[in-house]
Amino acid sequence: MVDCLKAVGTASKAAEQQAELLIQADRFGHPSHGLNRLEMYVNDIRSGACEPNNEPKILKETEATAWVDANNVLGATASHFGMDLAIKKAQKTGVGWVSVKGSNHFGMAGFWAQKAADQGLIGLAYTNTSPLLAPTRSKEAALGTNPIACVAPASQNESFYLDMATTTVSVGKIEMQRRKGEPLPSGWAQGPDGNETTDAELAFKTSCLMPLGGGELTSGYKGYGLAAMVELFCGILAGANYGHHVRSWSHSGAGGPANLGHCFVAVNPECFAPCFGDRMADCVKHWREMEPTNPDLPVLAPGDKEKQAAAETDARGYVTYVKQQIESSAALAKRLNIKPMEVNMN
Amino acid sequence: MVDCLKAVGTASKAAEQQAELLIQADRFGHPSHGLNRLEMYVNDIRSGACEPNNEPKILKETEATAWVDANNVLGATASHFGMDLAIKKAQKTGVGWVSVKGSNHFGMAGFWAQKAADQGLIGLAYTNTSPLLAPTRSKEAALGTNPIACVAPASQNESFYLDMATTTVSVGKIEMQRRKGEPLPSGWAQGPDGNETTDAELAFKTSCLMPLGGGELTSGYKGYGLAAMVELFCGILAGANYGHHVRSWSHSGAGGPANLGHCFVAVNPECFAPCFGDRMADCVKHWREMEPTNPDLPVLAPGDKEKQAAAETDARGYVTYVKQQIESSAALAKRLNIKPMEVNMN
Repeated sequence: MVDCLKAVGTASKAAEQQAELLIQADRFGHPSHGLNRLEMYVNDIRSGACEPNNEPKILKETEATAWVDANNVLGATASHFGMDLAIKKAQKTGVGWVSVKGSNHFGMAGFWAQKAADQGLIGLAYTNTSPLLAPTRSKEAALGTNPIACVAPASQNESFYLDMATTTVSVGKIEMQRRKGEPLPSGWAQGPDGNETTDAELAFKTSCLMPLGGGELTSGYKGYGLAAMVELFCGILAGANYGHHVRSWSHSGAGGPANLGHCFVAVNPECFAPCFGDRMADCVKHWREMEPTNPDLPVLAPGDKEKQAAAETDARGYVTYVKQQIESSAALAKRLNIKPMEVNMN
Repeated sequence: MVDCLKAVGTASKAAEQQAELLIQADRFGHPSHGLNRLEMYVNDIRSGACEPNNEPKILKETEATAWVDANNVLGATASHFGMDLAIKKAQKTGVGWVSVKGSNHFGMAGFWAQKAADQGLIGLAYTNTSPLLAPTRSKEAALGTNPIACVAPASQNESFYLDMATTTVSVGKIEMQRRKGEPLPSGWAQGPDGNETTDAELAFKTSCLMPLGGGELTSGYKGYGLAAMVELFCGILAGANYGHHVRSWSHSGAGGPANLGHCFVAVNPECFAPCFGDRMADCVKHWREMEPTNPDLPVLAPGDKEKQAAAETDARGYVTYVKQQIESSAALAKRLNIKPMEVNMN
């Protein structure tokens, strides 16, 4: 990944930070946000839509806030800059609230919230993304999958890790049902007429996702409201592209600079009641130990799936990819004239 | 409402603030959080579980944060204190983050977020509540309906108003289906065996709500994660009762002090990109003007339902209540030996 980004002119540090973000997503069992995204970044750099060697700049700041222009750098560069600032401010005043414009895709939101948690802080990360979510009752999309990530440290080696899109599912999950030839559960996606569809093929073509909660009867307007709140924190607060003005999602880099908005918040639990980590750990353990409805499906605490995937990856000692990914990575390496990824086919 | 609260010994200002909160919920078309809750507060005061004439105290603070002990006052008193602090801090440093312990039911979350928006700030309000939400895969409840409210000012007399429980629906909605003798939509509630039920009678008895998103296939774990995040901001951060330790929900006041936790955040958009209000208004208008799937059901912006209900109430000049509410209010007045509410039966 580093070689690919360098091959299109990215300086080492930016390339390494972007690769670290992607490999962490693969390690956490979220391949859609891992190596899979590399080609999009490479294309954006090649087309000039992303300028990886620029430098982010603070446009305005107080003891607790900062407004940042990412200057069109890679999402990882922009997000390290933004979250580092939020952390510094939270360490000084208890909370740091940083709003970033002029950025690119920032990958797995939880990675940025985790960065604050690694410093003993509560971390929050939000970003806007290309329109894919249809507001309740609407035929078309007007908001992104706008994720919310919240990570907090806890005692006894526990932590709280939440990283969720505000749509019911990602486009990737619809693609998986389509490949398996299976219908979609209700509440996932709309067809071109604006009605819910369970036809995976049609849903994939339409690319119009339902908000968390699904239809109106099951309170999908709450998911829509959450996605809108994230937009408020990101594009609207930062003065970046926002909502319906964000470019369409594509791998081509043809849409010009993305000018995405992010929001990074860090909160220092030490400024509040003592023993935050003990209470957090108590909850995580309590949830995990609750009696499950189905004995074969234990109750999980937020983040357990990611932690398990990471532990499995670490125990194995390597990341696994689907064949299609390996092939497209090999093609990308060839196109960029670099040594292809070492693969152990089995 | 003021008379009832005074009859059990509440000083004027606290009684008036609590009544203002309740009448605003009735005006906004959320009767579950209006007059309907009065008796619970009265009972809590009578039993000594709530001490309305205490004073909240700041336990720890920085330029941008405060940790508050509400000292068991009414939710409205605690929340005015908390949000006023957050506003003052946001006006000075751009953001104020206030965590409150030792509080009681704070009513309609949006009321508190609105208080910040009235000062030109983005307002966020969260609270924990009694366990009613079953974590995904779990047979029992372990979290409350833990609401998220976000209100922001916008240009052209617009605003963004989101106030949502992190369960699919409230218990009140289940009660309504039960009264109508209609089954529940899927994704609302669990039966005693932990499986989803559409039986309104059984669901009402079980009082075990599903998180926003419903079952696991439709990403209900995201609603569970959000409720948990709200708990992290409230009981866990404030050192109040939290999660499974919060007393059961009841009208009796028998459970002792609730010791609930709230979180109030105010953010000053002036510390970020200029013209926040214009972008916010652009979005609100865009959403509202989108082509609806069903021409009879126009797309709404978050808060449109509440604003419409308030406009209707104001045009009418009075609040309407169901007969049952009027009767129970009359009985309460009689019990407290005060003049009953003036009612125009028609």
